[in-house]
Amino acid sequence: MSFVNAGVDAMASSLSEEFAVPAHVEEVRRVMAAFAEQHGAAGRMVVLITSGGTKVPLESRTVRFLDNFSSGRRGASSAEYFLAQGYAVIFLHRQRSLYPYTRLYTGANLLDCLTLHPAHEGSGLVTVDQTKLPNITDVLKRYQAVKSAGLLLPVEFSTLSEYLHLLKAAAQALSSLGSKAMFYLAAAVSDFYIPPSEMPEHKIQSSNGPLQISMKMVPKILKPLVKDWAPKAFVISFKLETDPSILLERARCALDIYKHQVVVANVLDTRHGYVVIVTKDSQKELVLTEEEVQREVEIEEKIVKNLSHAHTQFINQKG
Amino acid sequence: MSFVNAGVDAMASSLSEEFAVPAHVEEVRRVMAAFAEQHGAAGRMVVLITSGGTKVPLESRTVRFLDNFSSGRRGASSAEYFLAQGYAVIFLHRQRSLYPYTRLYTGANLLDCLTLHPAHEGSGLVTVDQTKLPNITDVLKRYQAVKSAGLLLPVEFSTLSEYLHLLKAAAQALSSLGSKAMFYLAAAVSDFYIPPSEMPEHKIQSSNGPLQISMKMVPKILKPLVKDWAPKAFVISFKLETDPSILLERARCALDIYKHQVVVANVLDTRHGYVVIVTKDSQKELVLTEEEVQREVEIEEKIVKNLSHAHTQFINQKG
Repeated sequence: MSFVNAGVDAMASSLSEEFAVPAHVEEVRRVMAAFAEQHGAAGRMVVLITSGGTKVPLESRTVRFLDNFSSGRRGASSAEYFLAQGYAVIFLHRQRSLYPYTRLYTGANLLDCLTLHPAHEGSGLVTVDQTKLPNITDVLKRYQAVKSAGLLLPVEFSTLSEYLHLLKAAAQALSSLGSKAMFYLAAAVSDFYIPPSEMPEHKIQSSNGPLQISMKMVPKILKPLVKDWAPKAFVISFKLETDPSILLERARCALDIYKHQVVVANVLDTRHGYVVIVTKDSQKELVLTEEEVQREVEIEEKIVKNLSHAHTQFINQKG
Repeated sequence: MSFVNAGVDAMASSLSEEFAVPAHVEEVRRVMAAFAEQHGAAGRMVVLITSGGTKVPLESRTVRFLDNFSSGRRGASSAEYFLAQGYAVIFLHRQRSLYPYTRLYTGANLLDCLTLHPAHEGSGLVTVDQTKLPNITDVLKRYQAVKSAGLLLPVEFSTLSEYLHLLKAAAQALSSLGSKAMFYLAAAVSDFYIPPSEMPEHKIQSSNGPLQISMKMVPKILKPLVKDWAPKAFVISFKLETDPSILLERARCALDIYKHQVVVANVLDTRHGYVVIVTKDSQKELVLTEEEVQREVEIEEKIVKNLSHAHTQFINQKG
């Protein structure tokens, strides 16, 4: 217990020392708090989704960085399903990672999808070639409805430092909602970083020969988040492994250490069709059937239904 | 001299051993060779532009990777100016990095730029809101003209291995053009990598403690490119530094070692407004004036004019 406290205290004090504070963090905190207050007052549940990978600089004037493989697909599609369930969504995502709704057209080159409309060429009317952007009218209607209702608040990060500080700010901004706040931590966050004091200022020269990089472990932000910043919230973390044999053990281990509500466990190769929802006293496999894959059902629809149901039960228990 | 030969031989034999060959490399080589032949026959010069950063995996089932800071802006804008100068362009670029013409709208969310056209809502006509995509009719016309004339051949890479093999294939595909081929190597290529034999299969576990990464130096592909693969071509490399005091010395050093024609030297902080064109016996500064910055002139326009002029002189000398 004293070890846990020591960890939390170290985290709280070291966050600003080891990870540069983004200039706009106070402004973002105010915007998130106002968003939470408004939707809380309207009786809505609010989910904070984190999505995409974090960038870890190797030099202070950064030319090189370490990154995590993550398109942001899981976070972006989950946002859509949470919105469909009536949640208001704060979408804390890596800059230029996949974005709700827009993600459906991410493979397309914008200019390949546009035509100068023949009937209006003089006036320069540009229209969408709907064979290139399937279902665009439906998707656009859904996107515009969410936007005009103010249900989706996007916040961007790029580096690990930005992610850590913005997540802390979000947790504090949502604390007024108590159990009605959900944290859905789907971002692929680096486990390692180089402290500013050990970072070279300039670009590492290849003429100096082979490169040795020593990286410290990133403090586990889940610990103070659950314990101090949002102790009443419903918190979900993700565990991605490449080795299936250690997956569930690692998921249970995370629940033991951090005392949060759910780990969504998944394996790199099968993550789009299979996950396990792990709680302290249950585990449930969610699988896409062949027929569902054919119909292009997404596993995130099942994850979000399962978790929003569990969240409602959690709220009813906690009051 | 024997050292140079040893380097080239080692490179040629080690490329396939140390860097996995992409499955589609032969097909891409054929497409590039046909492109070169067609435009060569039409009397056009052909430039191969490399653009964007390379991904260097840290695990064979990759969760983490090392990357280089590069949006691909310089390569993408240069492609437009080479097309304006009458070149045919092979655009060898990092997947999802900036793309010619489309780059001008990269900050925009597609769905924010579209409207269901009021007069056609029943039929679902979707139009572009041209206040959100400035100059879209002009840009679209230019893009469509280039596309329908078949002047731009896009080829994508993502990892360092893909980059190295595709660049070699491109050099071989363009060798028939002799001095009429230009290589404009603007990609930000990693200097370091982890050989397959030293790479862990599975995701590195953070529970194992701090991370030590040992990386080998990437063989300099410029050496065999200039010496063996495209010995008659006009070759331009880029040198990006964060420390201005070592820039020109490093540029001259590269020309001495690789014996190619031009180094475009630039410093990270000022790269959008200042470069030095360095050749064996000249160096010329290109600078954007305040007035040009106001008019949104791009430094790449000046770089490309300078280099296409130098390329024409080079062709006239070599015949």
